[in-house]
Amino acid sequence: MKPWFDTVAIIGVGLLGGSLGLALKQRGLAGRVHGAGHRQTSLDAALERKTIDAAFLDARASVEGANLVVLCTPAAMVTDKLDEIAPACLPEAVITDVASTKADICAHAANRWNAGRRFVGSHPMAGSEKFGPEHADPALYEGRVAVVEKGDGLDPEAQRAVCALWEAVGSRVVELEPAMHDALVARTSHLPHIAAAALAVVAGRAGSESKPLIGPGFRDTTRIAGGRPEIWRDICLTNGPAIEQALAELEPLLAELRAAVRDKDEEALMAFFEEGRRMRGELADE
Amino acid sequence: MKPWFDTVAIIGVGLLGGSLGLALKQRGLAGRVHGAGHRQTSLDAALERKTIDAAFLDARASVEGANLVVLCTPAAMVTDKLDEIAPACLPEAVITDVASTKADICAHAANRWNAGRRFVGSHPMAGSEKFGPEHADPALYEGRVAVVEKGDGLDPEAQRAVCALWEAVGSRVVELEPAMHDALVARTSHLPHIAAAALAVVAGRAGSESKPLIGPGFRDTTRIAGGRPEIWRDICLTNGPAIEQALAELEPLLAELRAAVRDKDEEALMAFFEEGRRMRGELADE
Repeated sequence: MKPWFDTVAIIGVGLLGGSLGLALKQRGLAGRVHGAGHRQTSLDAALERKTIDAAFLDARASVEGANLVVLCTPAAMVTDKLDEIAPACLPEAVITDVASTKADICAHAANRWNAGRRFVGSHPMAGSEKFGPEHADPALYEGRVAVVEKGDGLDPEAQRAVCALWEAVGSRVVELEPAMHDALVARTSHLPHIAAAALAVVAGRAGSESKPLIGPGFRDTTRIAGGRPEIWRDICLTNGPAIEQALAELEPLLAELRAAVRDKDEEALMAFFEEGRRMRGELADE
Repeated sequence: MKPWFDTVAIIGVGLLGGSLGLALKQRGLAGRVHGAGHRQTSLDAALERKTIDAAFLDARASVEGANLVVLCTPAAMVTDKLDEIAPACLPEAVITDVASTKADICAHAANRWNAGRRFVGSHPMAGSEKFGPEHADPALYEGRVAVVEKGDGLDPEAQRAVCALWEAVGSRVVELEPAMHDALVARTSHLPHIAAAALAVVAGRAGSESKPLIGPGFRDTTRIAGGRPEIWRDICLTNGPAIEQALAELEPLLAELRAAVRDKDEEALMAFFEEGRRMRGELADE
């Protein structure tokens, strides 16, 4: 069943927010889309691209009368924005976000609303190297996974509405508790990004002589190091404990491998690469 | 100017050797191609695919009368094979190999031939997840980089012939001293492979719950972990010191990043991801 939201407020009209606005309008899921942003130029671009119907420099004003509020600001700003807009939201409004980390944000919301919480965290796993309102794409969420918070204390109707929202724009919903979400993405997304950046640094510091030797393996392995540093700084700031733990799992593997290389330990080397291949196949067979 | 080799002996008729045989024959660079292998079934497959004209179970017999000998065995076997065939080679034969690591092999050859060495190491940077004679592809070397050994002690004519060989099958030749080659590929190829395998292990050990969260970033970053473990074991065995050194450069980067995550050090996090993006852009802009 398609959900229907009379008025939707999207706080932050960049790639994720703009794409959601377009998707809601084109699929007939929303009556009117309010967009809030810091800069008039971004809002003008969003209006021109028709990702939103009305523009607001004041986030609080944008949520007045909204049935659905989606925070699409950078992860590190979500809790502040939530505090700013919450007093102006309708009591029955459903509120969600799109940040890549969930435990901090959902814990903050849980402090604010004791029971029957109508903020339900989301992490739609969509995005690209592009950013900004001009790249908004109504198909951005199609065929992607959207993680939606589950757990005690949530208003069940709000939780169902958030699931229905992402399904309606084409995503497959996976419900996870925030801590589990953060632990898993630390290993499937954040750690790979950190490793990609570190590999690029090691090769880059070795000098430009390495450039002709760059092949498809290096390109694939380091591709995500091209992402925006601000995003990844924020992810490290908001998912610190899980990332520390994931690094603490990676580091001894590398140290063991280094010992096996030093000792020419054929069995240990074979076991390492066999486990890598098996795990890669199980998680991401192509 | 196209080189011409009356008789070529290819020791090892798998993907790399078979593809070279096909390329030499189809481009009119060789009169006759001998292929040597351990197993009659591989030799039969190579004959059927016409990658070679004559098959030998005895590598020494295959090099008799050959003007060019190309060792296409796994890296760890090259020096033994070289010792086996060398006494049977024509004094004027040009000898090369295709192994991914060069310092050990070239040092071994330098010990055998004091001056005017006619073994000149190569590393054609081609390959795929496929292997075996049945996947031989005459275009495998087109548009790829082939590293050719340079340095004192080499016979200049033999060195030029090896460069001409790879250019004639479509590769761009980069001349490097063996130690420099090994140091660079440790950082552009071997370390990324080790990291990809380790990332797959960390995510895989976290359990199958992470599977729905696997996105394009994880797929790209860990793709090469799908490679054959035997190949990577051999690379670690034959390029140990350079890989140890590269790991010794990676590990403190990860430890520093972990400290920055723990301390919520925004500047250090930003600097890390900015350097990663810049180095990635410089080495492998797309």
